[in-house]
Amino acid sequence: MKPGAKLVRHYLQFRDFRAEEYAYLFERAAIIKTRFKNYEKYTPLFDRTLAMIFEKASTRTRVSFEAGMYQMGGSVVNLTTGDSQLGRAEPVEDTARVISRMVDLVMIRTFEQRKLERFAAHSRVPVINGLTNEYHPCQILADLFTYIEHRGNPWSQPLEGLKGKVVAWVGDGNNMAHTWLQAAEVLGFKVRVSTPGGYGIDPAVAGVKDAGCYQVFANPLDACRGAHLVTTDVWTSMGYEAENEARLKAFADWCVDRDMMAVAQPDALFMHCLPAHRGEEVEAEVIDGPQSVVWDEAENRMHVQKALMEYLLLGRIG
Amino acid sequence: MKPGAKLVRHYLQFRDFRAEEYAYLFERAAIIKTRFKNYEKYTPLFDRTLAMIFEKASTRTRVSFEAGMYQMGGSVVNLTTGDSQLGRAEPVEDTARVISRMVDLVMIRTFEQRKLERFAAHSRVPVINGLTNEYHPCQILADLFTYIEHRGNPWSQPLEGLKGKVVAWVGDGNNMAHTWLQAAEVLGFKVRVSTPGGYGIDPAVAGVKDAGCYQVFANPLDACRGAHLVTTDVWTSMGYEAENEARLKAFADWCVDRDMMAVAQPDALFMHCLPAHRGEEVEAEVIDGPQSVVWDEAENRMHVQKALMEYLLLGRIG
Amino acid sequence: MKPGAKLVRHYLQFRDFRAEEYAYLFERAAIIKTRFKNYEKYTPLFDRTLAMIFEKASTRTRVSFEAGMYQMGGSVVNLTTGDSQLGRAEPVEDTARVISRMVDLVMIRTFEQRKLERFAAHSRVPVINGLTNEYHPCQILADLFTYIEHRGNPWSQPLEGLKGKVVAWVGDGNNMAHTWLQAAEVLGFKVRVSTPGGYGIDPAVAGVKDAGCYQVFANPLDACRGAHLVTTDVWTSMGYEAENEARLKAFADWCVDRDMMAVAQPDALFMHCLPAHRGEEVEAEVIDGPQSVVWDEAENRMHVQKALMEYLLLGRIG
Repeated sequence: MKPGAKLVRHYLQFRDFRAEEYAYLFERAAIIKTRFKNYEKYTPLFDRTLAMIFEKASTRTRVSFEAGMYQMGGSVVNLTTGDSQLGRAEPVEDTARVISRMVDLVMIRTFEQRKLERFAAHSRVPVINGLTNEYHPCQILADLFTYIEHRGNPWSQPLEGLKGKVVAWVGDGNNMAHTWLQAAEVLGFKVRVSTPGGYGIDPAVAGVKDAGCYQVFANPLDACRGAHLVTTDVWTSMGYEAENEARLKAFADWCVDRDMMAVAQPDALFMHCLPAHRGEEVEAEVIDGPQSVVWDEAENRMHVQKALMEYLLLGRIG
Repeated sequence: MKPGAKLVRHYLQFRDFRAEEYAYLFERAAIIKTRFKNYEKYTPLFDRTLAMIFEKASTRTRVSFEAGMYQMGGSVVNLTTGDSQLGRAEPVEDTARVISRMVDLVMIRTFEQRKLERFAAHSRVPVINGLTNEYHPCQILADLFTYIEHRGNPWSQPLEGLKGKVVAWVGDGNNMAHTWLQAAEVLGFKVRVSTPGGYGIDPAVAGVKDAGCYQVFANPLDACRGAHLVTTDVWTSMGYEAENEARLKAFADWCVDRDMMAVAQPDALFMHCLPAHRGEEVEAEVIDGPQSVVWDEAENRMHVQKALMEYLLLGRIG
Repeated sequence: MKPGAKLVRHYLQFRDFRAEEYAYLFERAAIIKTRFKNYEKYTPLFDRTLAMIFEKASTRTRVSFEAGMYQMGGSVVNLTTGDSQLGRAEPVEDTARVISRMVDLVMIRTFEQRKLERFAAHSRVPVINGLTNEYHPCQILADLFTYIEHRGNPWSQPLEGLKGKVVAWVGDGNNMAHTWLQAAEVLGFKVRVSTPGGYGIDPAVAGVKDAGCYQVFANPLDACRGAHLVTTDVWTSMGYEAENEARLKAFADWCVDRDMMAVAQPDALFMHCLPAHRGEEVEAEVIDGPQSVVWDEAENRMHVQKALMEYLLLGRIG
């Protein structure tokens, strides 16, 4: 490993940052979003280039990172590997060494978290997890920002509004679910998980030390009871398409519907990282209803990621 | 639909703009082209991002929009869907909602005009038709600009030179042909169409109210007689490759040749939106001859589109 | 051909430039690299757009040209042709005419050198060879810069350090080997080539007039004896995948190992244009050892290409 490589900060999973860093990021994201909405020129990354490496298809992650980087004045090199994979033509360590000589920041969407970690270990520049089989920290960053924004917390104390809150995760025990557990542990809220048998979360993957930050329920209604936020994801994430039919059957009772929202807090929010399949993991009346904030959530991916990139490249500002 | 969505101007077909708007666009395009040729810095779109969505392959549209946006100081996110289609992973309305939260302008090349319209109806930002099965307004914008440019009309009165002129469309009754009819109606010139039987224009698609703006001829020579502009397109447009052999046979007499040019006005221009197949829809002697302005026409795509993007994003200037 | 087309300078093979031009390019590359490392803003290409056309896959060439152009303030349109080829939908001459109307510079990675030359002959703007079956001049430009950099020659006299030096090329008699021969002739050093039978260099392709600039050896150890630089490439270049098994067998004795490095100069450098297959064309102990400069070599692609683009677009500076 290159001397100095250990000095580079990466964002590979949610627990890579401490609570106070999240407080800073949320406040910066709010400032950056406001400036953007006011057409105020703010281009601190004008001389920086982001490389994005996609081993799985993407629209939201692609557009949010790319447009976000342009808004900050920077440039983007977009690399898609198609069916081939990082590490096929050469060891992933070599790719990391070469690319990190040419750009200032790398975002990777790949399969195994381990591959992301190998890349990061040999990168001279910060690496961001743009979704792996295990985690999706940028999405949870956006979800938390959206929750705080909708609850009207002052941005100078963004974490106050999360304390003691309850998030209900309904559906697949996937990378989103594992990242929610990490977020709960780092930021001090509770997650209630309900998944069909055989599709549960894996505590070893989540890797949370405080078992008190989450609770598992067989019945999704029980998970939603009293929740401040109800959230779900598609039943068949990328890479699991072959299981689609079996999953449709197994997940049939885990559709987020009006009954689930009815037992949550009266002002509970609904989130979904999209794309959504109405009638499968969520009823149309819920995702298109007044408690749904999915479009704000999607837009906020861009703003929190701008704050994240600014932090990784320039450190604390102001 | 988002409140306010109806306030956004789109450019989905040629008749979306009025004649006076075209007069403005042609004048702006001339100004923008001149500045560009003089290496004058003019970057009014420096803080804007264009998303391009391609469901069909493209070189000219891709490069002209992308380079044009860069010349105006803006950024571009280029999304290709490959074999998959807009609206497969999620309803096209959801894609519109998400992408239009992140960028300032969207250009779409797709199959059905209806899909473009559904996207536009749910977009917060302007949408441009980059070619559909039904229309190709950006190309006709370039063709008209090129005609005016070559005829030496003053740019302060660009439409004067089009009045009463005759355009001969020879070949396939496709999206280009339908757009020519709309242009004739909006701007007050005449189109003479000649296509093989079974490949004619569809008045319902063209949707022109004034049947006097166009005339159909069985013999392409008759369509070209006295024309000020003779124009054609490949016989097999994208999406019709399976019909290629049948089309080659059916269109054999619709090759634009020196005989057709000979019956047109002595100073008639020849245009083709490219790529061209010499020996099929046009003789080499015509497309490579002195009346052909196809390379200027191709370059002008870029300049008129810069004017179009400026107008949709910033409104009238000066 | 367009009048004036002959006035445009291209970079299609190494001998397109004279020695004094290389001296200038190496000095400029050093200045540009230093400024970049110091975060000094230097954006002379802010109003210029590069189009890249890839007919073969690429990571290093893609990222180095694209990030390099961004660092110089410019923009990039990245065109990949996938399985299709330049000249399929339309003659390559037409593509050249159209694209060179819209951008300021074109880089092409393709198969036959002849196709690159046809494009260049009809382009209004400079064309750069980003690898063909015959040549890879940008890589040799980077290799020579890296050699000079590591030998500590003053950048004001960059060619002095190359005079009389010996470069050992071990392995495939491919586009890299042919370009090394041209470089030796232009810049006055010696190349020693050793390849398996049937995979030798083709003097007609290399096209060097001075047969004294290179020497062929049956035994790779003899080629490496006393060399100042030992370099190789993968055994199966892009386009030759079908021959892979036969090549593995034929090349078995041409793996650059510690024995070969031992007979070279004590301070000889090792280079490889990457990706590398450890255990095939090079031993891990060599490429990962102290004489290897492959990561600097990869990064320098970017810096020499920035100097090249600056020269082609703006001419001599300072």
